Amino acid sequence: MKNYGLPVTAVKEGEGFWPQRQKLIRDTVLPYQFSILNDQLEGVEKSHAIENLRLAAKAGSGQPVAPEEYYGMVFQDSDVAKWLEAAAFSLAQNRNPALEEEIDRVVGLLSRAQFPDGYLNSYFTVKQPGRRWTNLQEAHELYCAGHLIEAACAYYETTGKDDFLHIMRKNADHIYAHFMRENPRGFSGHPEVELALMKLFRATGDSRYQELAQHFVDVRGQDPHYFEEERKKRGWYLWQENDDALDKDYTQSAKPVREQKDAVGHSVRAMYLYTAMADLAGETGEASLKNACSQLWESTVQRRMYVTGGIGSTTIGEAFTVDYDLPNDTVYAETCASIGLIFFARKMLEMEPKVEYADTMERALYNTVLAGMALDGQRFFYVNPLECAPGISGVAVTHRHDLPQRPQWYACACCPPNVARLLASLGSYAYSAGENTLFVHLYMDGRVETPFGWALNCETDYPVSGHVTYTFCGAAQGTIALRLPGWSPKAVLKRNGEAVNIGSVQRDGYAYLTGSFQEGDKLELVLDMMPRKVYASSKVPADTGRAAVQRGPLVYCAEGIDNEGDVFSLSFRREGGLEAQAFQPELLGGIVPITARGWRTEATNSLYSDTRPGREPVEIRLIPYYAWANRGLSQMRVWLPEN
Amino acid sequence: MKNYGLPVTAVKEGEGFWPQRQKLIRDTVLPYQFSILNDQLEGVEKSHAIENLRLAAKAGSGQPVAPEEYYGMVFQDSDVAKWLEAAAFSLAQNRNPALEEEIDRVVGLLSRAQFPDGYLNSYFTVKQPGRRWTNLQEAHELYCAGHLIEAACAYYETTGKDDFLHIMRKNADHIYAHFMRENPRGFSGHPEVELALMKLFRATGDSRYQELAQHFVDVRGQDPHYFEEERKKRGWYLWQENDDALDKDYTQSAKPVREQKDAVGHSVRAMYLYTAMADLAGETGEASLKNACSQLWESTVQRRMYVTGGIGSTTIGEAFTVDYDLPNDTVYAETCASIGLIFFARKMLEMEPKVEYADTMERALYNTVLAGMALDGQRFFYVNPLECAPGISGVAVTHRHDLPQRPQWYACACCPPNVARLLASLGSYAYSAGENTLFVHLYMDGRVETPFGWALNCETDYPVSGHVTYTFCGAAQGTIALRLPGWSPKAVLKRNGEAVNIGSVQRDGYAYLTGSFQEGDKLELVLDMMPRKVYASSKVPADTGRAAVQRGPLVYCAEGIDNEGDVFSLSFRREGGLEAQAFQPELLGGIVPITARGWRTEATNSLYSDTRPGREPVEIRLIPYYAWANRGLSQMRVWLPEN
Repeated sequence: MKNYGLPVTAVKEGEGFWPQRQKLIRDTVLPYQFSILNDQLEGVEKSHAIENLRLAAKAGSGQPVAPEEYYGMVFQDSDVAKWLEAAAFSLAQNRNPALEEEIDRVVGLLSRAQFPDGYLNSYFTVKQPGRRWTNLQEAHELYCAGHLIEAACAYYETTGKDDFLHIMRKNADHIYAHFMRENPRGFSGHPEVELALMKLFRATGDSRYQELAQHFVDVRGQDPHYFEEERKKRGWYLWQENDDALDKDYTQSAKPVREQKDAVGHSVRAMYLYTAMADLAGETGEASLKNACSQLWESTVQRRMYVTGGIGSTTIGEAFTVDYDLPNDTVYAETCASIGLIFFARKMLEMEPKVEYADTMERALYNTVLAGMALDGQRFFYVNPLECAPGISGVAVTHRHDLPQRPQWYACACCPPNVARLLASLGSYAYSAGENTLFVHLYMDGRVETPFGWALNCETDYPVSGHVTYTFCGAAQGTIALRLPGWSPKAVLKRNGEAVNIGSVQRDGYAYLTGSFQEGDKLELVLDMMPRKVYASSKVPADTGRAAVQRGPLVYCAEGIDNEGDVFSLSFRREGGLEAQAFQPELLGGIVPITARGWRTEATNSLYSDTRPGREPVEIRLIPYYAWANRGLSQMRVWLPEN
Repeated sequence: MKNYGLPVTAVKEGEGFWPQRQKLIRDTVLPYQFSILNDQLEGVEKSHAIENLRLAAKAGSGQPVAPEEYYGMVFQDSDVAKWLEAAAFSLAQNRNPALEEEIDRVVGLLSRAQFPDGYLNSYFTVKQPGRRWTNLQEAHELYCAGHLIEAACAYYETTGKDDFLHIMRKNADHIYAHFMRENPRGFSGHPEVELALMKLFRATGDSRYQELAQHFVDVRGQDPHYFEEERKKRGWYLWQENDDALDKDYTQSAKPVREQKDAVGHSVRAMYLYTAMADLAGETGEASLKNACSQLWESTVQRRMYVTGGIGSTTIGEAFTVDYDLPNDTVYAETCASIGLIFFARKMLEMEPKVEYADTMERALYNTVLAGMALDGQRFFYVNPLECAPGISGVAVTHRHDLPQRPQWYACACCPPNVARLLASLGSYAYSAGENTLFVHLYMDGRVETPFGWALNCETDYPVSGHVTYTFCGAAQGTIALRLPGWSPKAVLKRNGEAVNIGSVQRDGYAYLTGSFQEGDKLELVLDMMPRKVYASSKVPADTGRAAVQRGPLVYCAEGIDNEGDVFSLSFRREGGLEAQAFQPELLGGIVPITARGWRTEATNSLYSDTRPGREPVEIRLIPYYAWANRGLSQMRVWLPEN
């Protein structure tokens, strides 16, 4: 059964966990990021992204521009695109004429920057005219196009306005013509356009876009390798190191996609590719592509994923390494990669509603992705370590990328607007609609309009508690499938106050309730939010002898500020219990702290001692991982020794 | 009190721990390495080092040579130099005319390769004529000269033959003239010549060599930075990455040496520099230089050293990182760096006989340095990890340098002949002579001739047992100072069978026995060889919750082959004892295995589990770290969780 995420009309304004954050996106993050994209904020990494588009628009109007006026990454356009998409999604909940005007002004720039043949890219218009489509390996042209396509679809979906969509259709038509006819072996070094074309296909109904997405997926990794031929021909490089031997794994193109078994290479690229593959497999039902997706899924989440849902364990190539190599301190775990994992999970979930996909989606969302943004919405992590030792993290040459504090912006600013667009569209990850079935994957306050003519209202303070109440708005005939998270063995489900025997309605981790519902009918789900210790497989050398703590979907960590400045001398007592404290609304935006019985090992002066240092019982204070590094420089650790 | 290491006449032929190894050096390692240096061994990394000298000799005879005939590193000469030094040292115990002939033939090449003005370097003679002394930052000219000087001193000391010494004096005189007059701000990017010049000073009595060593030490790190000026002038680079900003820490030249407080940069360079600094401070008594040495010593061994005596924790620059950053798996811990640490320790020990220097010397020697060579003497580790996971080690991009098996040779082959020359001259580290005092720093079978007219014979199977017996050969009047290792709290000392009250004769970890000794007088030292668990400071994140095992000077490790193929599921029982097994002469060249009470955690299929995996009691089998990776591919771990 195939189902799709629901359009983003689901989340109400309010003070719940997600409404609070979506308000932050609208009121703070979007204006903040737009001011940076417009170079209006002092003291942060320069963006120049809007200015690049202005230059391209100028060139499009036939005025001369100097190549050196372009500034930033080759994919600087994508920062604007992701912001546009986030802004567009935010309008689903709150139309905002001022914001729409801003969007329209940017769309106007895009329109003027577009060539008559549909080509659109500020880098190749301003900085490298005449070189378009000659460096697919490095130059992110299709990647930028993909992000703009996604933004156009979002803006069209939430506002019905189609100027932007027309621009990007024209662009997509140009790409179709170029890659289906003139250059049929070419594909992008950074996947993205594939998944975007699937969105464009759904937004327009034009199957050529699906055809092109399929083409890009199919042509990838064929022999002889397109990038090798391209390198010989083009004679120019964006990055010097690419003058070395071609690393085909980096771009997931060492083999045709159906032969790929391990998640390899740049982890964001991997996730975007796998998302498109899963989307296509779901759409076409092709078994071999679906099988490849399943294998890549298993490789990712069963052997190469952090407990926080982070993926890509090395900074070298921002990439996957090998099975079970999951260092906690030198980790990369890019925020964008976990966002990509959520995309991939959603597409797997649309293919087959199994709870493991939703569990992973939730794991990545509530931990790495949320940690990617400061609580005030104005600082961002690109890299998400599971251990931070000020003095080592961000300082040692091996830890330079593992910053102990979130910067305001980045020269390579992919993550901040990526978080914004994901959170602004979260409703479509929370719910999906299959054949006369509403699926509930994530628990979030607000109302969802189903395509079946009825709506559902959700009330919950989740993840503060595990109580979630759904109320039918209007009579309904059909099925509602409620996710039963793998981490909650003792879920209770009630229908209008009467307990439902979950065992009898449960399939693959979803409780299927079928029948007639009346307006006002209530479904109550109570999940088990007892804090629990989590253990990694002993195949993960970095985590042996250690435990982490989770409560509901939240992974917890110990920060120095709550633990006398030193978390590395702490260990959990093997027999020691965990205790969830009362909700503290004023602490870190509102959290449920956990205390754990543990030990503090006595500090020794010598580096090595022949006698075991003493220890004393201590209460270890834990906070949700996503909230770390919001109170100044502090040690942090997720996995503590247990003894 | 200043004292010097004794000349190498100390170790007898035999079957003890060190005699066995020194025999291996003579009978196997030297011929093996010489055949590689002569390109006579198939299937190993090509050396070409002797051939480079032949080419230089040819050029020296006025015959044309093509620059492209040179092959290898810019410092390829130093491989030959270290081999020559090792071979020379080996003659101290066994004169060997055939070996001397080989040495003399190489010396003949050096003689013919030397310019009339004394300059000698095959790279700049063959490959880059006209560029001598223009790239001190990268080109290792002074480094190669230093190694050849050391070799010449050794050959002169052990044979009395002075041809080689004359060549290198002429070379040193050339260097003196160039750097004391023409280019007085220059110094070497890789320290080595400084410590070599001190040896040449002692071998010849010519104080200009000490003066030059002092000059090189003093001129280092002055402002403006010599390398920055040089880079502007020279316009050529050996390594592309050096086109970037100058990393002054890498060459320990960011500050004048007396202002350096932390061990930084390339760890071998650091050790060679600190050795020369300590040698000079000891010679001149200069307090500020001695103080700098003490601070650098503390930085090295109290905050930046592995329990195995490995130093330099990152492959990036083969370098030190920051305090307490001591990862066990991505570690570098170059064999040469621990050899350098032994040099440094010896010079500190000569300045002040404190046991911490000798303890560190022994730690580095018995663990990292010994691990640097396979038991058969024909394979070598450059990098010495404390944890090896086949599938990750040597494979993951972050672990490529951490090989799970010793290769036969390296393109950069600094370590193998460095091990050879250290082991061939070990007697001079074991003993030193101060004012009418013989110091015993290391315990090794054999006879040492003191400069006081008497000799001492040592019989021991150390480190199999902790029994060491010294017998006076001839009557002696004076002091013998026996090291009491810090790791042995319960040492017993007997003089002719009568217990000595150690407390009354102990100072800084040495037992000073003064008086008249008769021929045949015996001193017996019995050290506590009970295996013990060792704990790292909780400031070392990588080792929290873990313990290592030591017995005597030997650090132990668990290898997969002894533990059902899996050491990552093992943990020590907190209350569990350690048991030394009977000596096994046939196992790994003769070892005392240790068993530890521990747990094996049950393997789980899932990457993360909400329930603690079961465990069962198990006997963990441990072998000395130095012997790891001698029985095929296997997991290995030094620090095991303890719970």
